[in-house]
Amino acid sequence: MIPPVRVGIAGLGTVGAGVLKLLHDQADLRAERCGRRIVVSAVSARERNKDRGVDLSTVRWYQDAAALASDPDIDIVVELIGGSDGIARTLCEAAIANGRHVVTANKALIAHHGAELARAAEERGLTLAYEAAVAGGIPVIKGIREGLAANRFASVVGILNGTCNYILSEMRETGREFAEVLAEAQKLGYAEADPSFDIDGVDAAHKLAVLAGLAFNAQVDFADVHIEGIRHVSALDIGFADELGFRIKLLGIARRSDAGLELRVHPSMVRRSSPIASVEGVFNAVIAQGDFVDRVMMVGRGAGAGPTASAVVADLVDIARGCRAPSFGVPAARLSTVPAVPMRSRHGAYYVRLMVVDRPGVIADVAALLRDQSVSLESFLQRGRSPGDAVPVVMTTHETEEAAMTRALQAIGDMDAVLEPPRMIRIEPF
Amino acid sequence: MIPPVRVGIAGLGTVGAGVLKLLHDQADLRAERCGRRIVVSAVSARERNKDRGVDLSTVRWYQDAAALASDPDIDIVVELIGGSDGIARTLCEAAIANGRHVVTANKALIAHHGAELARAAEERGLTLAYEAAVAGGIPVIKGIREGLAANRFASVVGILNGTCNYILSEMRETGREFAEVLAEAQKLGYAEADPSFDIDGVDAAHKLAVLAGLAFNAQVDFADVHIEGIRHVSALDIGFADELGFRIKLLGIARRSDAGLELRVHPSMVRRSSPIASVEGVFNAVIAQGDFVDRVMMVGRGAGAGPTASAVVADLVDIARGCRAPSFGVPAARLSTVPAVPMRSRHGAYYVRLMVVDRPGVIADVAALLRDQSVSLESFLQRGRSPGDAVPVVMTTHETEEAAMTRALQAIGDMDAVLEPPRMIRIEPF
Repeated sequence: MIPPVRVGIAGLGTVGAGVLKLLHDQADLRAERCGRRIVVSAVSARERNKDRGVDLSTVRWYQDAAALASDPDIDIVVELIGGSDGIARTLCEAAIANGRHVVTANKALIAHHGAELARAAEERGLTLAYEAAVAGGIPVIKGIREGLAANRFASVVGILNGTCNYILSEMRETGREFAEVLAEAQKLGYAEADPSFDIDGVDAAHKLAVLAGLAFNAQVDFADVHIEGIRHVSALDIGFADELGFRIKLLGIARRSDAGLELRVHPSMVRRSSPIASVEGVFNAVIAQGDFVDRVMMVGRGAGAGPTASAVVADLVDIARGCRAPSFGVPAARLSTVPAVPMRSRHGAYYVRLMVVDRPGVIADVAALLRDQSVSLESFLQRGRSPGDAVPVVMTTHETEEAAMTRALQAIGDMDAVLEPPRMIRIEPF
Repeated sequence: MIPPVRVGIAGLGTVGAGVLKLLHDQADLRAERCGRRIVVSAVSARERNKDRGVDLSTVRWYQDAAALASDPDIDIVVELIGGSDGIARTLCEAAIANGRHVVTANKALIAHHGAELARAAEERGLTLAYEAAVAGGIPVIKGIREGLAANRFASVVGILNGTCNYILSEMRETGREFAEVLAEAQKLGYAEADPSFDIDGVDAAHKLAVLAGLAFNAQVDFADVHIEGIRHVSALDIGFADELGFRIKLLGIARRSDAGLELRVHPSMVRRSSPIASVEGVFNAVIAQGDFVDRVMMVGRGAGAGPTASAVVADLVDIARGCRAPSFGVPAARLSTVPAVPMRSRHGAYYVRLMVVDRPGVIADVAALLRDQSVSLESFLQRGRSPGDAVPVVMTTHETEEAAMTRALQAIGDMDAVLEPPRMIRIEPF
């Protein structure tokens, strides 16, 4: 009888409680599937006596999470605390130094320190696994690293933050403004009291950096990720998008070319008929473009106790079964360093919304400024006349370079008749 | 230096040539990813001298595929011949008996004999892998077996045949009739000269049986799969579906309940707004419903040299890396036997199209016959008047039992005023 795998869990919040429940409820099925039991031997959390729905009386308790890493009778440390530095990082480094595998849900940690942790783990013959760090329960890390191991990837693109996707979906379905939908999302628990991590795109950027490192077998510098959130997406933009045949999503985009790596998170317009456009609410999606498999998309719940616990336990099952694959697809010591392609080099189409004074000649002036930067107009809408008042004017451009677009918008924003900073949303080819 | 993994490939058609190309083109990247080389040591095919784009002069050649299984200097046999019995089965059994791992793309073989092959392989500590047998390059087998290993599944549903999905998409996009689109599909190579395997649903049924066995850790009897293809889907149905807010897809549906296993392949109406509705053309999709992860969907190319080769090589990489998971999620000797739920027990909504003589009273008679079976009408459409001539009449029902629907349609079909056999398409809740 193979001895059980012994797990120490640090962090017993929503996800930690979900992992405890899953390990408890599915114990027999899992033993059948991996040929041995997975048992929780030790835990660490801030509040010892909180009810997490599972009996922890026989489990060793550590008030200090880092001390859990020194427990000699565990095989795997599960880190569910969060944060790129501080106790989560200390814990993972200590676990590896002490010869324990590490399973984590911590996207910030892996985005900032994944390569070095992977190197340390691999030097000691240990596994660093992070399926739960990206896209909740969707098995995208394993999918890219193993299921699609035969491919070189041109791009990985995703809807990676459920809070933002929920807000954008709600805005579209109800016609309401961003601030109102955000407030409701906070009430419903889909957004934090301080929502900036999510709505300013940082969370999505962490996940993108992790995906890019894996897909391109590269050492990704998080500072290279261009980040824009959804704060400036207004109900007007949602409405115009629909009119133009688009939907607005916060996309994370990682693309490799001869020039290097594009890494960017920003609101994006995608064709309404495209599969990614139909991913709504709290669902996440990841699309990988591989040279042999072509395009593969995976969709599922990006967060929540159940889905995230499913991902954590999938990693535990892998380790229990003895499956080893390098954390980032190739040995960490062999991750490549690829230059980042700056945002200004992005080549693509744009949506622009202006609030202008409704008088003859304004559009001609705007069009002239675009022409000056060799930006070609594809379409133009002005709905609603309010002579002398402010009206929204919407334009879409043909493909152009971001640097040119930036200069054009600068000049347009300086016009007297343009009453607010121009709003620009990139149109992405899906 | 770890010795290379030596592979023998039987069958060098489209997929085999694709595997040869992939192994050749990506040799260095793959060696980095799995820590050892994967080399083709032996091949077997009908035509020795056909150009497959790769130099085979240093590779051992077997005219007889079964003899390849006895080659003492290979580790893995890759079976790309096809067919549930005959040489493919003999080859795989021999390979296992001789201590070789088996990687196959053969859905018919796994649908009919997967459990017994898995048992034989596992008794000898060998791997039987079949990622390429279902949904082309989409890593769905690995996804369910490993990425979602923490879940008990309630259902697995898929668009599993690209030929059928292409035809249905084309019919919808162009308004043309089935026969015309099929003929064009054959010209374009999306359908075989004898297309019945695909368009009559058999291919999709093989894949469904494989998915169900894996998802439910069960021994599935292929004879239990209810199979209907797309031959009777007419341009009228495609048009009415659109009008009613649906799209028609050939779905494979496997559902587990206390009553047992539902296993069925048939044309289905799904809401146009659902993610699965947006999967068009030759793309496949699989949706798994797990108790912790909730719903996960995977979309990608279901066939073709590149995607299928990607799946075959992913299995080779797993074996090269030493990853072992039971073929069907649990040891084959422990697969459960679950009773099949017959088609007549299906509970759901229906679309029905009749060709009736356009005269007063016909609809009243039809409605009465439905009432007699306690089938409740949800909607009804009669477009186009041709008094005295034949007109299409379309109805959708509320949820009812299939047995009742069958009796109702029998009686309706017997009416003088009903000029053709009623056409029924099940409405599926997506």
